Amino acid sequence: MPAFSRLVRFLARDGRTYYGDAILPAGVSDIAKIRQARVIKGDIFGKHDVTEQVADVRLLLAPLAREEVKTVRCLGLNYEQHAKESGMPLPKYPVLFYKPVTSLGGPFDIIPVAAPAQDVEGLDYECELVAVMGREARDVAESEALDYVLGYAVGDDISHREWQLKRGGGQWSLGKGFDGWAPFGPGIVSASLIKDPQTLRITTKVNGKTVQDSSTKDMIFGVAKTISFLSQGTTLLPGDLIFTGTPQGVGSGRKPPLWLRNGDVVEVGLEGVGTCVNRVEHIESRPKL
Amino acid sequence: MPAFSRLVRFLARDGRTYYGDAILPAGVSDIAKIRQARVIKGDIFGKHDVTEQVADVRLLLAPLAREEVKTVRCLGLNYEQHAKESGMPLPKYPVLFYKPVTSLGGPFDIIPVAAPAQDVEGLDYECELVAVMGREARDVAESEALDYVLGYAVGDDISHREWQLKRGGGQWSLGKGFDGWAPFGPGIVSASLIKDPQTLRITTKVNGKTVQDSSTKDMIFGVAKTISFLSQGTTLLPGDLIFTGTPQGVGSGRKPPLWLRNGDVVEVGLEGVGTCVNRVEHIESRPKL
Repeated sequence: MPAFSRLVRFLARDGRTYYGDAILPAGVSDIAKIRQARVIKGDIFGKHDVTEQVADVRLLLAPLAREEVKTVRCLGLNYEQHAKESGMPLPKYPVLFYKPVTSLGGPFDIIPVAAPAQDVEGLDYECELVAVMGREARDVAESEALDYVLGYAVGDDISHREWQLKRGGGQWSLGKGFDGWAPFGPGIVSASLIKDPQTLRITTKVNGKTVQDSSTKDMIFGVAKTISFLSQGTTLLPGDLIFTGTPQGVGSGRKPPLWLRNGDVVEVGLEGVGTCVNRVEHIESRPKL
Repeated sequence: MPAFSRLVRFLARDGRTYYGDAILPAGVSDIAKIRQARVIKGDIFGKHDVTEQVADVRLLLAPLAREEVKTVRCLGLNYEQHAKESGMPLPKYPVLFYKPVTSLGGPFDIIPVAAPAQDVEGLDYECELVAVMGREARDVAESEALDYVLGYAVGDDISHREWQLKRGGGQWSLGKGFDGWAPFGPGIVSASLIKDPQTLRITTKVNGKTVQDSSTKDMIFGVAKTISFLSQGTTLLPGDLIFTGTPQGVGSGRKPPLWLRNGDVVEVGLEGVGTCVNRVEHIESRPKL
């Protein structure tokens, strides 16, 4: 069992980067709004302590350093209403894809859009519950699967539909794996505080307007079933992330489609966890496609 | 520039694990057949030295420790004749998918087949040239791309066609990502020794019988073009592996199909590098699908 309740990683006012246990001010439930945290010393996945040292938070970072994450797994079409809006049959098994660790970002980072994704429309948001593995899992039963979870965060599975669906030869990797296209956070709420991950409100706002508003109870494969399934013949490692799919309301499911544009601000939120607020930013690069 | 010619990682007779520079006996070109190596000290991707210490090789391991590999990228349908045998049009862009780092294995490791992949036919081999990134690459031009390569190995992109093509909702991840399904090695031959990676014979034998025998010149997207393409908007990290696709002759392309069975020995080979010899082994697990 981790010693923390709400794990954050942050740049402190003293200029150093720490892991910490978020201190929520009275009446605040969104970890993104914290000002202070108790510094954690030790191994997040092993022996560690929440110390008495209180640090002032200057900027929340991705709640795990890139080096702590081995594999980012993601599910597609895992909410019933979303599968329907995509015009797809309900999947019989979880639809699995991966993102590289370089796609990870923090709760206040920009979503960088490089040249290949600028020259054609199709940039989309996907709010998702992110399960963070706390220990090695292999061939685990559904009834025990949640014991392997360190905690939960919210993430945005940023996707470019043109690259994902049309230019990738049917494989979704190209359109979902660009640098910074998996921001998550704002912290990781200990699994001990979220007894049932299938009852949480999950939302996306674009420039302040709600575009996704659903509940994790609409998931086809819940977190426990997903972990059990993915662990069959495959070892899940501490720090592995599982993005568990998005509910209805994505930009590509709208008529007309709602594509993200340069400067748009996307906010994904998960009940009991908080929000990630990321601005779309077209960046310079040297396109050579 | 790395100081080594042929990087190996091995269990030595002294019971310790080392990185080393393979010592090829006279007349031997397959790294898998070495008996000794000069021990390497330091960071494979940074400052390191090939020492005078000669160690006796007991067992060659995957040439990079799992911790050194951040992301395993793979291309599909990247040989012209293979795309044709698969009945697919030639891809306009590289078809990208990923494997988790837990799928990596060594040149003499077993290919473990867990319950989900035992209960239905479809286990297949795919010999592939593996490019190993030596330094961080982002937005690199095709003309400079090979400068970022540490070296080359051969790998086997083990695939279960039923899970890959039919049960994965169109995404190939499920059928390619099981533990140990990406053996590679036997060593990493420095890019300085392989000036042109597009002229190498590449082969697979199953139980001693040749089933794939082609050349990397049949690749649709060569190594340089692939690295340049994949680096657009995406940072490739030192230690990242790129499995560059397989030529014609896979089991699923045959009539009748040639599926791998328990006990089969699969040998993949790449000219100038050597061979990986892996035995298929059905393992016990607790299926809960």
